[in-house]
Amino acid sequence: MNESMIYMIFPDGKEKEYPKGSTLEDIAVSISQSLKKRSVGGRVNGELYDFKRPIEEDARISLVSLDSNDGLELMRHTSAHVLAQAVKRIYGEARFGVGPVIENGFYYDIKVDHSIQKEDLLKIEKEMKKIISENLEIKREALSREEAERLFFHDPYKMELLQAIPSHEPVTVYRQGEFVDLCRGPHVPSTKWIKSFSLTSVAGAYWRGDSSQDVMQRVYGIAFASAEDKQAYENFLEEAEKRNHRKLGKELDLFMFSEEAPGMPFYLRKGQTIRNELERFLRDLQHSFDYEEVRTPMMMNQRLWEQSGHWDHYKENMYFSEVDDQRFALKPMNCPGHMLIYKDQLHSYRDLPIRMAEFGQVHRHEFSGALNGMLRVRTFCQDDAHIFVTPEQIEDEIRSCLNLIDYVYQTFGFDYSIELSTRPEDSMGDDSLWNQAENALETVLQSLGYNYTVNEGDGAFYGPKIDVHIKDALNRSHQCATVQLDFQMPEKFDLSYVDKDGQKTRPVVLHRAVFGSIDRFLGILIEHFGGAFPDWLAPVQVKVIPVSNQVHGQYAEELRDRLKHNGVRAETDFREEKLGYKVRDVQMKKIPYLLVVGDDEEQHGAVQVRQYGQEGTYKKSLEEFESDLLDRISERVL
Amino acid sequence: MNESMIYMIFPDGKEKEYPKGSTLEDIAVSISQSLKKRSVGGRVNGELYDFKRPIEEDARISLVSLDSNDGLELMRHTSAHVLAQAVKRIYGEARFGVGPVIENGFYYDIKVDHSIQKEDLLKIEKEMKKIISENLEIKREALSREEAERLFFHDPYKMELLQAIPSHEPVTVYRQGEFVDLCRGPHVPSTKWIKSFSLTSVAGAYWRGDSSQDVMQRVYGIAFASAEDKQAYENFLEEAEKRNHRKLGKELDLFMFSEEAPGMPFYLRKGQTIRNELERFLRDLQHSFDYEEVRTPMMMNQRLWEQSGHWDHYKENMYFSEVDDQRFALKPMNCPGHMLIYKDQLHSYRDLPIRMAEFGQVHRHEFSGALNGMLRVRTFCQDDAHIFVTPEQIEDEIRSCLNLIDYVYQTFGFDYSIELSTRPEDSMGDDSLWNQAENALETVLQSLGYNYTVNEGDGAFYGPKIDVHIKDALNRSHQCATVQLDFQMPEKFDLSYVDKDGQKTRPVVLHRAVFGSIDRFLGILIEHFGGAFPDWLAPVQVKVIPVSNQVHGQYAEELRDRLKHNGVRAETDFREEKLGYKVRDVQMKKIPYLLVVGDDEEQHGAVQVRQYGQEGTYKKSLEEFESDLLDRISERVL
Repeated sequence: MNESMIYMIFPDGKEKEYPKGSTLEDIAVSISQSLKKRSVGGRVNGELYDFKRPIEEDARISLVSLDSNDGLELMRHTSAHVLAQAVKRIYGEARFGVGPVIENGFYYDIKVDHSIQKEDLLKIEKEMKKIISENLEIKREALSREEAERLFFHDPYKMELLQAIPSHEPVTVYRQGEFVDLCRGPHVPSTKWIKSFSLTSVAGAYWRGDSSQDVMQRVYGIAFASAEDKQAYENFLEEAEKRNHRKLGKELDLFMFSEEAPGMPFYLRKGQTIRNELERFLRDLQHSFDYEEVRTPMMMNQRLWEQSGHWDHYKENMYFSEVDDQRFALKPMNCPGHMLIYKDQLHSYRDLPIRMAEFGQVHRHEFSGALNGMLRVRTFCQDDAHIFVTPEQIEDEIRSCLNLIDYVYQTFGFDYSIELSTRPEDSMGDDSLWNQAENALETVLQSLGYNYTVNEGDGAFYGPKIDVHIKDALNRSHQCATVQLDFQMPEKFDLSYVDKDGQKTRPVVLHRAVFGSIDRFLGILIEHFGGAFPDWLAPVQVKVIPVSNQVHGQYAEELRDRLKHNGVRAETDFREEKLGYKVRDVQMKKIPYLLVVGDDEEQHGAVQVRQYGQEGTYKKSLEEFESDLLDRISERVL
Repeated sequence: MNESMIYMIFPDGKEKEYPKGSTLEDIAVSISQSLKKRSVGGRVNGELYDFKRPIEEDARISLVSLDSNDGLELMRHTSAHVLAQAVKRIYGEARFGVGPVIENGFYYDIKVDHSIQKEDLLKIEKEMKKIISENLEIKREALSREEAERLFFHDPYKMELLQAIPSHEPVTVYRQGEFVDLCRGPHVPSTKWIKSFSLTSVAGAYWRGDSSQDVMQRVYGIAFASAEDKQAYENFLEEAEKRNHRKLGKELDLFMFSEEAPGMPFYLRKGQTIRNELERFLRDLQHSFDYEEVRTPMMMNQRLWEQSGHWDHYKENMYFSEVDDQRFALKPMNCPGHMLIYKDQLHSYRDLPIRMAEFGQVHRHEFSGALNGMLRVRTFCQDDAHIFVTPEQIEDEIRSCLNLIDYVYQTFGFDYSIELSTRPEDSMGDDSLWNQAENALETVLQSLGYNYTVNEGDGAFYGPKIDVHIKDALNRSHQCATVQLDFQMPEKFDLSYVDKDGQKTRPVVLHRAVFGSIDRFLGILIEHFGGAFPDWLAPVQVKVIPVSNQVHGQYAEELRDRLKHNGVRAETDFREEKLGYKVRDVQMKKIPYLLVVGDDEEQHGAVQVRQYGQEGTYKKSLEEFESDLLDRISERVL
């Protein structure tokens, strides 16, 4: 064996010998010029590496291109350095805190006398573009601590960062042109790799996040591998802002919040209409899946929460009250109440599975800074169910839960992905039960033909679980449904059933939610549909506008009353406003159907239909319009 | 004018002169022997009087017969004395506390060495009957305090009662045979008037209700004007016990309570099914009455409750919690939340009336001793609404509320009576508004042809109100619906709308509930229907039983699935039990329809129907049975 040579193992498993100290660039060149041209760095034994950093030992390697996640990370990191370099060029004396990569971009904390305004960002961007066009090479240097201290002695922030580097870790700096920064790296090879970026905002930030320390100016930017990618992201942001559920919630009169109860939604008429539809949809579906709905108290005494384990594991997130000098807790979950119901009667194996469902209003504390419209609240309604099964029934029940979830998500047009989390280190319960349960879960997922990810060891300590993540119209992922096996709750509440042989036996409990939180699900739906709900969910389904209030008002009222009588949410608009104004208002409120009625419609018992999101109008007989609409509503057509 | 004569004014307004000191008996005799024979006392200037007590001045008088409320009160009071006399005869040395009249009977608190058991009551009853047959005359004597003290010096209880009599009040004793008792009276003339009585129970009681004092034995009895009346009452008790909602709630699996949350109901599957039907019924109805449903948080901060006045007037009944170091209260009412919603937007007179409804879960503290199944709980769901109106709209809105209430109560077959409560002393708000409101209420009640009682000065300080009392199947009265005008809440929350002239104007608020508390209403319904709910409410509407599980099981399942698919709550019973056992079980559970299916039914696509509460069975085609049932359900036939 030649000691000056090292072995590189490629992602496809092939191995090749290179001189010790070869770089990823050398390796790329050895394969093809085009590979070299499109690579900006790589991974060496899992660690992200500069393109030109020498490799000193045998390693598994892979190369990364700019548009990969790793490539973008390198480039965004370099963008932060270029930002700092530009600021220094413009403002001269400037100090820098930390400059990390964040989702879609980067920021740098800057200490400079000049107060950076939104307008200044353009000037900085311009200087950054100049630096990029200079195509400065980015060089990594390993320094001794003494060398580093000599380099940064004038900069208290960098000195503090330097001292914080553990003594066994190497100290490195990165240089590009006249700029040098204490930095762990890695970076793209040169500044020209920053293909498309913008500075987006500036905000205040404390040095090291500590409010007793210096205030710095944090400049945010985004950076992408191409102008198209950046544009796509900006379009996404714009679209997301248009669909923002807090904004639409206000515009469409769906819900409000009050300082008298932060994080606790007030449902206005239209929001409540949607909620009621969601509840009714699931309630009816659960009925056909043989669930039994129950309702348990909003608060129960502390003793019960101690028994259930919530006291030990969850009390920081719970609200408390006092009843007859006993401490009560507002329920953060419905499980203990359902356990009490199960325990109230004797059960035989013939009674199982028992599927106990509740639309349960729970309260869970969140920091006020973490609250986010409907997506993060302090009280929400969980579409919760606990299913009590024999071990043999686990498989069938999981299948039934997944079928229910699938039916619901298809109704909203959601794609979804599935994650299976298995036995963690600190699990409790019998080995054979865990194995049986995990096998059951896998068997069901496979038999239903799901692609799923396995998160080894990520299950709850009380049992394995399946999480379902939906993808909304903007391709964002939201974890909503969950199916969890629980071997512990039945122990804690000493639950039993009498089996075929007359023996008292412990049931297994499945926790299951489909929407998860109805409130959060509504928030997701608002953004998914951009407020233009499918017919069955629309708070107002039909608006009837007479061409003339005086002449056609009566016909309009008759229409509305007839539709209303048949269960359609129909309204008229008799305001003394121009027709065009009223039509625009219907568009603004995203009402699915606008019926403008005048002489012609009245004479022929017809309606002129303007459908939301479609060009032009069409004419239909009233009967046909109504029967089509009722079909669409009852079939929950998207 | 003769000074030894006095004027008696009879109920019909006629006057007649009698010698001073005449008794009611003298007056009765002067009219007719039969009147004398059926009278046991009377009222003199409103005060209940012994038959033989001399009248010393002009007075409005009326005579009372034994079977009147007054007559029964006299007789029940005498029954207590007879009880005491009998106890003394049997046990010798006995002391007595208080012996008042209660609903349908009486009790006496007794201090005696012997521990009175249920079996002893028969012996005491026997002695009481002897005293009654002795027909002892009951004589009233007015005593000086000294005379009274001399009479009772050996009896510490009576001495204490004597001392508690205010000095300006006369002291009287009543004697019958060897028995004498300190007593304000009055009584029937002699013991024979006790026509029909029973001793019902014995319990412990503290002297003067104070747990630091002596324990006494309280013997309860009932007494009526005839054996038939007593029997009717006992039948009523028996029927009420059969219909007791706590008992039926358990037998029919409707709800449960737990020590972990006293006074807070847990709805089991079947109870929740009924609740959901009740909610859906009212929700749909409210939709057609142009209500808008909202949903407000379960708790809000203390500041809000101070503003609403609940803090000052209601905090003893409220539960509290803490959120971010602020004190929050669990809502005992929904008003403040609705005020916040109203205030969140600007309103024009064109928007009014706004009818804001919520199925709001409220929490109100009750002493644990006061809890009574569903009839008195600590948390319940109020079918609450607040209607914001201009003063001119009050009349129409009251009418609309009463129409809604009428529709709901007719659906359940409830008769009801109406009470109007008017301006109290401590009222707030403008005189003219009060007058307008009271006139509006009266006008509406009259125009709808209601007989109603006026409770002068009994309105809330914030406005006049209408209370609706329903009569259940056992003729018991329950206050459920209410319509209240409120002039104060709009002030407290500074509510306004812009009127026709562009001026900011204060709206009036109507509080309105129909069920009142859904939980309590359910309790009343259980007792009203004795658990045999009308088809639309029955938790299980149809039970299908195959003659043979093996042979007819499949047909039974098909039947059930078909019914279920069409929205009927249908179940099968495939237990390995005899047919007769299963049939009895359906009766016990009061399920409206039992379908037994065998060869004949299967061949002809027919069903053999056994309807709850009817003799025998009848045969119908499946189609006919189903369509009849669906009609009955959708029309909510009783």
